[in-house]
Amino acid sequence: MNSGRLYKLQHFIPWTRKKIYYLIVISAIPTALYYFLDLKWLAIPWVPVALVGTATAFIAGFRNTQTYNRLWEARQIWGAIVNNSRAWGIMVKDMVRDTDASIEKALHQELIYRHFAWLTALRFQLRESRGWENVKTRSYNREYLKYYKVPEWESDLSEELKKYMNDVELANIIKKKNKAAQILALQSARLRSLNEHGKISDLNYVEIQALLKELYDQQGKNERIKNFPYPRQFASINVMFVYLLSIVLPLGFLSEFSKIGTNCVWLTIPVSVVVGWVFFTLEQIGESTENPFEGNANDVPITSMSRAIEIDLRDMLGEENLPEPLVANNNNILM
Amino acid sequence: MNSGRLYKLQHFIPWTRKKIYYLIVISAIPTALYYFLDLKWLAIPWVPVALVGTATAFIAGFRNTQTYNRLWEARQIWGAIVNNSRAWGIMVKDMVRDTDASIEKALHQELIYRHFAWLTALRFQLRESRGWENVKTRSYNREYLKYYKVPEWESDLSEELKKYMNDVELANIIKKKNKAAQILALQSARLRSLNEHGKISDLNYVEIQALLKELYDQQGKNERIKNFPYPRQFASINVMFVYLLSIVLPLGFLSEFSKIGTNCVWLTIPVSVVVGWVFFTLEQIGESTENPFEGNANDVPITSMSRAIEIDLRDMLGEENLPEPLVANNNNILM
Amino acid sequence: MNSGRLYKLQHFIPWTRKKIYYLIVISAIPTALYYFLDLKWLAIPWVPVALVGTATAFIAGFRNTQTYNRLWEARQIWGAIVNNSRAWGIMVKDMVRDTDASIEKALHQELIYRHFAWLTALRFQLRESRGWENVKTRSYNREYLKYYKVPEWESDLSEELKKYMNDVELANIIKKKNKAAQILALQSARLRSLNEHGKISDLNYVEIQALLKELYDQQGKNERIKNFPYPRQFASINVMFVYLLSIVLPLGFLSEFSKIGTNCVWLTIPVSVVVGWVFFTLEQIGESTENPFEGNANDVPITSMSRAIEIDLRDMLGEENLPEPLVANNNNILM
Amino acid sequence: MNSGRLYKLQHFIPWTRKKIYYLIVISAIPTALYYFLDLKWLAIPWVPVALVGTATAFIAGFRNTQTYNRLWEARQIWGAIVNNSRAWGIMVKDMVRDTDASIEKALHQELIYRHFAWLTALRFQLRESRGWENVKTRSYNREYLKYYKVPEWESDLSEELKKYMNDVELANIIKKKNKAAQILALQSARLRSLNEHGKISDLNYVEIQALLKELYDQQGKNERIKNFPYPRQFASINVMFVYLLSIVLPLGFLSEFSKIGTNCVWLTIPVSVVVGWVFFTLEQIGESTENPFEGNANDVPITSMSRAIEIDLRDMLGEENLPEPLVANNNNILM
Amino acid sequence: MNSGRLYKLQHFIPWTRKKIYYLIVISAIPTALYYFLDLKWLAIPWVPVALVGTATAFIAGFRNTQTYNRLWEARQIWGAIVNNSRAWGIMVKDMVRDTDASIEKALHQELIYRHFAWLTALRFQLRESRGWENVKTRSYNREYLKYYKVPEWESDLSEELKKYMNDVELANIIKKKNKAAQILALQSARLRSLNEHGKISDLNYVEIQALLKELYDQQGKNERIKNFPYPRQFASINVMFVYLLSIVLPLGFLSEFSKIGTNCVWLTIPVSVVVGWVFFTLEQIGESTENPFEGNANDVPITSMSRAIEIDLRDMLGEENLPEPLVANNNNILM
Repeated sequence: MNSGRLYKLQHFIPWTRKKIYYLIVISAIPTALYYFLDLKWLAIPWVPVALVGTATAFIAGFRNTQTYNRLWEARQIWGAIVNNSRAWGIMVKDMVRDTDASIEKALHQELIYRHFAWLTALRFQLRESRGWENVKTRSYNREYLKYYKVPEWESDLSEELKKYMNDVELANIIKKKNKAAQILALQSARLRSLNEHGKISDLNYVEIQALLKELYDQQGKNERIKNFPYPRQFASINVMFVYLLSIVLPLGFLSEFSKIGTNCVWLTIPVSVVVGWVFFTLEQIGESTENPFEGNANDVPITSMSRAIEIDLRDMLGEENLPEPLVANNNNILM
Repeated sequence: MNSGRLYKLQHFIPWTRKKIYYLIVISAIPTALYYFLDLKWLAIPWVPVALVGTATAFIAGFRNTQTYNRLWEARQIWGAIVNNSRAWGIMVKDMVRDTDASIEKALHQELIYRHFAWLTALRFQLRESRGWENVKTRSYNREYLKYYKVPEWESDLSEELKKYMNDVELANIIKKKNKAAQILALQSARLRSLNEHGKISDLNYVEIQALLKELYDQQGKNERIKNFPYPRQFASINVMFVYLLSIVLPLGFLSEFSKIGTNCVWLTIPVSVVVGWVFFTLEQIGESTENPFEGNANDVPITSMSRAIEIDLRDMLGEENLPEPLVANNNNILM
Repeated sequence: MNSGRLYKLQHFIPWTRKKIYYLIVISAIPTALYYFLDLKWLAIPWVPVALVGTATAFIAGFRNTQTYNRLWEARQIWGAIVNNSRAWGIMVKDMVRDTDASIEKALHQELIYRHFAWLTALRFQLRESRGWENVKTRSYNREYLKYYKVPEWESDLSEELKKYMNDVELANIIKKKNKAAQILALQSARLRSLNEHGKISDLNYVEIQALLKELYDQQGKNERIKNFPYPRQFASINVMFVYLLSIVLPLGFLSEFSKIGTNCVWLTIPVSVVVGWVFFTLEQIGESTENPFEGNANDVPITSMSRAIEIDLRDMLGEENLPEPLVANNNNILM
Repeated sequence: MNSGRLYKLQHFIPWTRKKIYYLIVISAIPTALYYFLDLKWLAIPWVPVALVGTATAFIAGFRNTQTYNRLWEARQIWGAIVNNSRAWGIMVKDMVRDTDASIEKALHQELIYRHFAWLTALRFQLRESRGWENVKTRSYNREYLKYYKVPEWESDLSEELKKYMNDVELANIIKKKNKAAQILALQSARLRSLNEHGKISDLNYVEIQALLKELYDQQGKNERIKNFPYPRQFASINVMFVYLLSIVLPLGFLSEFSKIGTNCVWLTIPVSVVVGWVFFTLEQIGESTENPFEGNANDVPITSMSRAIEIDLRDMLGEENLPEPLVANNNNILM
Repeated sequence: MNSGRLYKLQHFIPWTRKKIYYLIVISAIPTALYYFLDLKWLAIPWVPVALVGTATAFIAGFRNTQTYNRLWEARQIWGAIVNNSRAWGIMVKDMVRDTDASIEKALHQELIYRHFAWLTALRFQLRESRGWENVKTRSYNREYLKYYKVPEWESDLSEELKKYMNDVELANIIKKKNKAAQILALQSARLRSLNEHGKISDLNYVEIQALLKELYDQQGKNERIKNFPYPRQFASINVMFVYLLSIVLPLGFLSEFSKIGTNCVWLTIPVSVVVGWVFFTLEQIGESTENPFEGNANDVPITSMSRAIEIDLRDMLGEENLPEPLVANNNNILM
C-alpha cells in the first residue's frame, strides 16, 4: 500500500515509459507515410475513432470499478480478520477458564500464539505467485521492486512458524497441503479437548467454535480473490481494445491536423502519445490493482496488519516486550 | 476458467470469425451500391449512427456488468461452499464424539464422505444443459470445446457417487428428483440419529444442523444462477441493437469517407469491420460469461474446487493417499 | 420468465408496433411542413438534440439498472424461499420427534403441507393487481397474454388451499386480511403446542421458530417489491424525456438531411423511426420488467418454483405419487 | 408515495414553472443583446458547453443513483420493520406463556400494543423537519402540499400514544429525549420481569430480547437516513453546475442558430428552455427524493405501513374490530 | 458535517480560488503566445481534448462514487455503533441482575460508563492525522478551519476518560497501544467476573459477549476506513488527468475561438477557467470527502453522535442531569 499523498511523478513516468516509446513509434509510422509518401487514405475521419474510444472508455471504466472492488473487498476481509482476532483474544481469555491461574495463562497463550501461526501461514500462502499475476512477469513491475521489499519473499515459513508453535505441531503442519486450514483444524481439536476437560463450558464452546468457522470464512474469501483472477476474457478485451485504439488514434488525428496545414501533421505524434498515454495508464493502473496479494506496491498491507494484530493480542495477554509496528518505508510503501 | 495471462489471439480471432465475415458482407453491400449504382441517399449523416452507438454502448456496458456479477456471485457461492465444507470437517470431527476411537473415526469418515457425495451430485446437476445456454448451441463455442474437456460430461454420476456412499443409500438417492437436496436430507437424518444416541450433544446438534441449512442456501443459490438466465428481454435487445448498429454503421461511414474522395468510400468496409467487431466482441464475451456453469471455458472451476475440498477434508481426517489437485490444461483452461 | 434463447422477432415487433406508428406520425409532420410549406426554422441544429439524447440515455440506463435489480432481488427472495423450505423440511422431519412412528409421520406431513398452503396463499397475493402495474392496463401487454396463462388467475385460492389444510383451519384463514401471514402464525401456534407437549425440545424449538421468522422476512421482502413500485417520479421523467426526444429527433435530422439535398429530407422519417424505436424499446422493456410479480411474461416463475418445492419436500417425506414439474409452454414462457 | 401510473402533467408543469420562468429570462437576455446590440462574442462555440453538459449529466446521474438508493434503503428498513413486527407477534404469542389463559392474553396484548406505541413514536420522530429538507422551504413543494395531508402533522403524539399505553408509562415516556428508544427499553424491562417470573423461559427470553436489538437496528437505520443528509458538498455542486449550464447553454445555441440565419437566433430561447428544463427537472426530482421521511409526496408511506402492521397483529390476537387500511387519496398519494 | 441547505458561495469560491488563479495563468500563456507570437500550431483540433475530457470525466465520476461510498459506509458504521450502544444499554440493564437494587444499579452504571470511555477513546483515535489526509496539508482546508472547531483537537484524552473510568483502570489503559480495543477487553473481563459470580446467567453471558464482538467489528471497520486511504494510484491518476486536461483545454479552445475572429481568442481565458473550474471543483470535492474522520467540515459528526448516545443511555439509567446535545455552529458545521 502506498501511504503517501500521491505517487511521485519521477516514479510514475519511468513506470509507464515502455508504453510511451510504443506510442511514439505507432504514431510516427503513419505520420511519416502520410507526409513522405502522401498516402492520403491513412487520414481516416474522426468518427470511427471516437466510437472505438467511447467503447474503450466504457471497458476501462468497468475494469477499474471491478479491480477497485477486488482491492477493497480484500481490505474488508483483512479488516474482518482484525476484528475476529480481537474477538478471539477476549473469548479465549474469558471463556477458557481454569482454577489454576498459571495453567489458565498458559492455555490462553497457547491458543493465541497458534492464532499468530495461522496468520503467518495465511500471509505466506497469499504472497505466492499465480500465472495471471503481474508483479514478476512485467518488466516495469519487476523494476519497481527496487523501491520496496516483500517480507514473505525474504524469510522462511518454518522459521516464522517456530515462534508460535511447538516442534511436534510444526512438523505435522508443514507436511499438510493447506497449512493455514489445518492450523485452524488444530485449534478446533484443542477446543474440543478443553471442552471435554471442562475448561470451556458447553455454551461457551459453541461460541468459540463458531468463531473458528468465521476464520475459515475469511481465509476462504482471501483464497477466492487470490485464486480467481479478474476474468481473463475481460482483461483480454481491455488490452485488445486499448491497442486497437492506439493504432487508430493517429489515423484520426492525421485527418484533423492535416486540415490545419501540411506541416501540422507532425503534431499527430505528441497528441497521439498524450491521449494514448491516458488510456494505457488507466489500463496499467487497473492491471496493477487487480491482484491485491501479489507482492505489488498497491497490495493490501497484510504483513503490517498481522503485526498489528500480534501487538494488540499480546497487549491483551499483558505481555511487556511488544514488537514494534511496521511502518512505511522511505518510498511510502507499506507491506 | 482461463488461468493464463490473456486469451491467445490465435484462439480469439477464429472464435469471432463468423461475425467478421458477416460484417464484411453487411458493409460491402451498401458500399458497392453507393459506388456502382450511385445511390447517394445510402450515405446518411453520422449523428443518428452516433446516437444508436451510444445507446448500444450503454446496453452492452450494462450487460457486461450484470454478467460479470453473475460470474462473480457464482464464484462467491463456491467460495462459501469451500468455507462451509471445512467447517463441516472440524464440526464433524470435534462434535461427533464416541468413547470408542474407531467407531468415532468411522462416523467422521461416513459424514465427510457423504459430503463429497453431495458435492459430486451438485456439480453434475450444475453442468447439465439449459435452453438458453450457449456452449452447445453456438458453433464457435462447440468448436472451442476442442481446447478442453468438461469432466462431468465424460463420466457417470452413479460411478462417481459409489466412491462416497454405500450401495443402499446410492440406490435410494439415484431415484430422487433432486439428488443433492436429498443427500443433505440424509445427512440430517443421520445427525438426528446420532443426537438421539448421544453421540452429538443437544447444543452441538443445533450447530451442525445449522450448517446443513447453510449448505442448502449455497445449493439454492447455485440453482438460482443456473435456472434463472440473464433476462431474455435484455439479452434480446442487446443482440438486436448490435445488429442494428452493424447495419447503420457503414451507411454513416459512407458519408464520412465520401467527403474525402470517391475511391475512399471503399475504406468503409475495413473501418466498419473494425468498429463493428468491437461491439460484436463485447456482445460475444458477455454471452460466454453469463452462464457460469454451462461447461464453458469461462466457467467457475467447480470440478477442481470440489477436488480441493476433498483433499483438505481427507487431510483433516489424517488420510495418507490424497488425490492430486486438478491443474489447468495446456490451453490454461481449468474446469 | 422466458426460458428460450431470445425473444422471437415476430413477437417483438408487434409488441412495439404502436410506438412505431406514433414515430412515423411524429416525424412525418415536421418533414411535410418543412418540405411543402418551407418552414426552414423547423430544422434545428443537432447539438440540443444530442444533449437531450444523452440525458435520456442516462435516465434510461439508470432505470434499466434499477428494474433489473428489482427483478433479480425478487428472484433472490424466491431462491431464499426454496432454501428455507428445504430447511423447513429437514428441521421438521428431524426435530419434531415422537416415539410412535405413525404419529410422528402425521405431524411431519401436517407441518409440511401447511407450508405448501403458505406458498399458495403467498403466490396468489403476489399475482393480484396494483395501480401502477402494466400487464392489464397496456394494450400491448394485454395482447401478449395470448401467448401464456397466469395460473393464479385461472383457479380459486380456497380450492387450492383445501389440498393442504383441514376445513376448520381453512375457514379461519380465509377470513383473515393477510392470509399468508396468518398461516405462518398458525405454524407458530402449532410449534408452541408441540413444544409444550415435549415433541420438540426447547433448543430445537428455538431453531424452528427462528426459521418462521426468516419466512416472514421473505414474505415481507416480496410484499416490499410488490407494494412499492419503481418510484413514479423517476418513471414519469423517463416517459416524458423519451417523448420529448421523439419530438426533437426529427427536427434535428431535418437539418442534417437537408444539407444533403432537398429530397433527402424524407429520409428523416425512417431514420427518426429507427432511432426513436431504440429509445422507446428500452423504455418498454424497462416498464415490463419493473414489476416481477404482475403476471407478465418476464415475471419470476413463482408458480413453477412453488411446484418444485412441493416435489422436493414430498420426496423428502417419502411420498410416491409426486406431481410433475411445470415446464415452459410452446412460447418458452414459464410462470 | 405516488401509487398511480405516472405523475399528471398538470401537476408536473406547475411544479417546475419557476425554473421555466428563470430559463426564459436567462436565455432571452443574451439573445436580445446579440440581436439588438450585435454583441457577436456572446455566441461562443459549442464545445465548452458540451463539456460542461457532460460533466453535469455525470453529476446528475450520480445524484439520482444515490437519492434512489436512499429512498430504496428507507423502504427496505420499513420492510424489515414489518417483518420484525410480525415476528414480534408470533414470538410474544407463543413464547410468553401463562397457565391462566386470560392473564396470558392480557400480557400478549400489552406487549403488542406497546409495539404499536413504538411505531407511533418512531413515525412522529421521522416526520419532524430538518434544516436541509425541502418540503417546507421550497415554494413549489409547499404549494404541492395542497394535494395531500401528512397525518403526523395533523395529530398529536400524546393523543396517539394514549391508545397503546397506560397513563403512567405515557407520562414517563413523554419526558424522554428519544421516545421511541425508551419505549423499546420499557419492552426490555418488561421482558426481564416476565423472565424473572417464569413466564418466558430462559432460552426463549434470549430470542425475544434479540428481536428488540433488531428493532433498535431498524430505528437507528431510520435515524441515519433522517439525520444524515445527502452530503451537502455534492448537493451544492449539483446546483451550481446546473445553474452554470443554464447560463452557458444559450450562448452555445446562439452560435449554432446564428449559422442558420439572423432571425433564427430567437429560437435560442425555446430550445434553451427545453434543454435546460430537462436538467433542472432531473435536479428537482433528485431533490424531492433525497429525504424519504420529510413529508414529501414521494415519501416512504410510513403511516399506512404502520396501520397495516397494526391490522396484522390485531388479527393475530384474534380481535374483531380491525381498523381499515389507509389507501391513496384522489391524487394517488399514499402517506 | 454540513447541516445547512447548501454550501455558501462566499465560502466556496475562496476555497477554490487557488485553482482559479492557476487556470487563468495556464490559459493566458498559450493565448498570449498565439496572439502575439502567432504560434498557430498551439491551436490544436478539439477532438483530442474531447477524448481526454471524457476519460477524465469517467475517472472523476468513479472517484466521486467511491469517496461517497467511503463517507456513507463511515456513517453506516456509526449508525451501527448507535444501535449497538442502545442494545448494550438494555442488555446490561436487564441481563446483569442482582438481588440488591443498589449494587445492581452501580454495576449497570459502571458498564455503561465504560462504554462511554470506549466511544471517547475511539473518536480520539479516529481524529488523529494520517499522511494522506488533506485537512492539515492543504492550505485551502487549513484556512477553512476558521469556520469550525474539531473537539478532539481541543481537549485531552485522559481528561475526557476520567469522567468515565476509575483512576486505576485509566492508568492501565493509557499505557496501551490501542486504547479502545483494550477498553473492550476490560469490559469482557468484567463480564466474565460477573458471570462467575452469578450476576449474569450463562445464556445471557453468551449474548452480551456477542455484543462485544460486534463492537469490535464496528471499531475495526472504522479503522479500516481510517487506515486504508482511497488507493493512491487512483488518486494520483485523477490529479494527473485533471492537470493534463487543464493544459490541453485552452489549446483546443484557441482553435475554436480563432475561427470566430482574431480578437475572440481572448475568450479562451474565461471559458477555459469556467470549464477547468468544473473539473477542479469535482476533484477538490472528492478529495475533501474521501477521509470521513480527518477533522474536515464534511466529516461524519462523531463527536455529536457520541454525545447523543451518552444522552440516550443516561436517560435509560434514569439520570436527571442529562448533557445537552451538540448542535451545528453558525456556519452549519456539526462535528
